[in-house]
Amino acid sequence: MIDPRIAVIADRMKGIKRIIAVSSGKGGVGKSLVASTLALILTREGHKVGLFDLDFTSPSTHIILGIEGVQPKEDKGIIPPEVNGLRYMSITYYSGDLAAPLRGNDVSNILIELLSITRWEKLDYLILDMPPGIGDVTLDLNRLIRNTRFLIVITSSQLAFETVKKLTSLLAEMKIKVIGVIENMKMEKSDAIKKQTEKLGLKFLEEIPYDPKVEEAIGNADKLLRTPFAKKVEEASSAM
Amino acid sequence: MIDPRIAVIADRMKGIKRIIAVSSGKGGVGKSLVASTLALILTREGHKVGLFDLDFTSPSTHIILGIEGVQPKEDKGIIPPEVNGLRYMSITYYSGDLAAPLRGNDVSNILIELLSITRWEKLDYLILDMPPGIGDVTLDLNRLIRNTRFLIVITSSQLAFETVKKLTSLLAEMKIKVIGVIENMKMEKSDAIKKQTEKLGLKFLEEIPYDPKVEEAIGNADKLLRTPFAKKVEEASSAM
Repeated sequence: MIDPRIAVIADRMKGIKRIIAVSSGKGGVGKSLVASTLALILTREGHKVGLFDLDFTSPSTHIILGIEGVQPKEDKGIIPPEVNGLRYMSITYYSGDLAAPLRGNDVSNILIELLSITRWEKLDYLILDMPPGIGDVTLDLNRLIRNTRFLIVITSSQLAFETVKKLTSLLAEMKIKVIGVIENMKMEKSDAIKKQTEKLGLKFLEEIPYDPKVEEAIGNADKLLRTPFAKKVEEASSAM
Repeated sequence: MIDPRIAVIADRMKGIKRIIAVSSGKGGVGKSLVASTLALILTREGHKVGLFDLDFTSPSTHIILGIEGVQPKEDKGIIPPEVNGLRYMSITYYSGDLAAPLRGNDVSNILIELLSITRWEKLDYLILDMPPGIGDVTLDLNRLIRNTRFLIVITSSQLAFETVKKLTSLLAEMKIKVIGVIENMKMEKSDAIKKQTEKLGLKFLEEIPYDPKVEEAIGNADKLLRTPFAKKVEEASSAM
């Protein structure tokens, strides 16, 4: 079936230099926190940055960044509002805090719709907060946007690593480039995850200790940027 | 569209007394660990228990319980093998450890297929390990199986609570009964989650402190049953 919106997407994205999809094998590893913080750090460094929350069934970057009371402007498409210095796009502009039960078909449809209407204009970086694991968005993204590179967030748990193995083997099959792996919420000293990551042929970017300050900083971008967690994300970012 | 398999499901499930779906607003809160441990505890108490991993895109109960080298038997359907004293069913019997990228349609289809072929026979409890959040499985389940009650696992994070609010409001809309809420991986003293849970009109069952012993017990059901975590799940279970 021909979807006329798909032809528009490449044109909408052509002013974007680098696209980084922040992903994880499973949920709850701090993926959205890493994506939001990375976007804030790149903005502070003087880059033009967009942040797009693609975790439609469980969006959280708007809560992390404390984004309230803004709406995109309509002008031959949708112009994402600038919040905390970055251009921010999320399904929550439209769904609010209502329960949005979405089937896979809806997810694909929303992805295509938002990609085809959003006017990012010129960006140095577009950061995508992906849904965890391998689902419709991950499968569609490769078809819809070229040159997306994946940044993978993981915790020290063996369970999380098993799911990352599946995700990275799928990305390899789809010939998608993985920038590297960040080990988040680390509680104990161990290089087990680092070793296993490197065995998969992936770059181990950084380990981030569990940081209790992060929970208090939720909803406040400035506070978040001052956490030890953000310092570590910055180090990971310069290693990319 | 009429799917002849749907008519079979009620018949397949008729010997099951109680169905408990272990769910969460977001991933990474320990949902699969709670589901697996609850199934083990009910088995130890002398009940006939089945455990069905419905987190098709990211199954993990087989890793938690260390299930390897078993396969269901085919006999006018599929008979789930008995492992650790409970009847265990998972998509991993068929997909192995391969990356299984599934779209929403595939997920619905696998759910219907597995429900219609699996012969649980007589069970006191069937524990379902649900995928996190609200997706195809949650939406289909209500249509396919009556009388499922939800047990919700959450962490102390405000982010996790926001997603639980969405999940429980959807469950209320669908008139699905929620047994209660377990707060898992608690690191600091605070009754914030308990208060908010009760404000939603839900029963707060138990708080479970973060237990570093759990990671070492992954893959070993006996070891898992001896953790402080399991003791807490047992207390939650008797409060249900």
